Amino acid sequence: MLYGVSVGCGDPLDMTIKAVRTIERCDTVFVPRTGGEKSLALRIASGAVDMSAKQLIHLDFPMTRDTQELENAWDSASETVCEVLREGDAAMICLGDVSIYTTFSYISGRVEAKGFETKWLPGASSVTAAACAANIPLVCGNEPLHILPYGCEGFSEMLAANGTKVIMKCGKKAPQLLQELEERGMLESCIAVENAGLENERVTYGRDIPADVGYFTVFILR
Amino acid sequence: MLYGVSVGCGDPLDMTIKAVRTIERCDTVFVPRTGGEKSLALRIASGAVDMSAKQLIHLDFPMTRDTQELENAWDSASETVCEVLREGDAAMICLGDVSIYTTFSYISGRVEAKGFETKWLPGASSVTAAACAANIPLVCGNEPLHILPYGCEGFSEMLAANGTKVIMKCGKKAPQLLQELEERGMLESCIAVENAGLENERVTYGRDIPADVGYFTVFILR
Repeated sequence: MLYGVSVGCGDPLDMTIKAVRTIERCDTVFVPRTGGEKSLALRIASGAVDMSAKQLIHLDFPMTRDTQELENAWDSASETVCEVLREGDAAMICLGDVSIYTTFSYISGRVEAKGFETKWLPGASSVTAAACAANIPLVCGNEPLHILPYGCEGFSEMLAANGTKVIMKCGKKAPQLLQELEERGMLESCIAVENAGLENERVTYGRDIPADVGYFTVFILR
Repeated sequence: MLYGVSVGCGDPLDMTIKAVRTIERCDTVFVPRTGGEKSLALRIASGAVDMSAKQLIHLDFPMTRDTQELENAWDSASETVCEVLREGDAAMICLGDVSIYTTFSYISGRVEAKGFETKWLPGASSVTAAACAANIPLVCGNEPLHILPYGCEGFSEMLAANGTKVIMKCGKKAPQLLQELEERGMLESCIAVENAGLENERVTYGRDIPADVGYFTVFILR
């Protein structure tokens, strides 16, 4: 069995009991890695579970839009995972919630195709963690919620949709987004949450949102 | 301090470490109640924390669309909460994640206006728990995610939007929704997740989704 374990987005105490126990029970833990940086997911998990006796296997995911290169990386990572699964259960840790924009999605199907089972463990996502950091609800009553990667197909129209909009994956293009919100008269109602749950968490509002807002920022428009 | 504690949507082990510790530390726990039914949130919390020595205070929220009646209930519940907060910290437990469709949203602002602080603790929402129960990602790569209460303003147009659609709060109108999806050629790709995380969890697909699908069902269109 391969467990896809959500570790939340910053504070190890935001991990679920099941996430902690599942990692504790598995001898091997897969750690997704993009661009070779230190894994925040591993740092979080290490804050709640003693990882010293674990076999940690990094799985490399390239930062590219080249479909063939991505497919090759997913195939290769999945093969590594399957080799371990032949010996027993293993966990793959994922930042935030495992069902929202994680590399586990690309591994699980391939691993299932090879005859292994997978189990997805839900957790605190960066979307709701950001709202919690700002002490606000995302949605009440009958309001819809739209989670929009910046620049996704139909982004501009969806920005005008009824309900709360959460903008993710803005990366270095924050100044561009802030400019767009300004032009559309939406900047005043924007909340930027950087590094929710981490020691450098910062919540800024409207015109006070700095142009150099961090890479991992969630924008909430409500 | 009033803690808004997410308890997840079914399995007590899906509670976060912080949720458990926070409830443990508070002598008084507020339990939202609608229509006088037994609280699922309380059942979940009781599965992870010994509640026997706690002062449990039920807060009643009427099932009505009468704005004045709702405002009165929220005012009254908030006064009850403030009385306790004058003596010390307390927790209010919420099903799923506290930032998504919870009664805490109506209490926190009122309590803050009376000079008390609130802290929101994120957790596993029914949205991601449903996807995890179905062993599928909600969104990958650059896909948007739309969380739509059934019949919200603009529902039909949003159903046609690019990305994954999660339909909530369908209640007894599931046959109506399934009919609408059928007419729009979307039924085949629909997944219905009932009672994610509970012992009667059930995942059904497309034309196999039963007409008597449960009240607490999350529909995923991907």
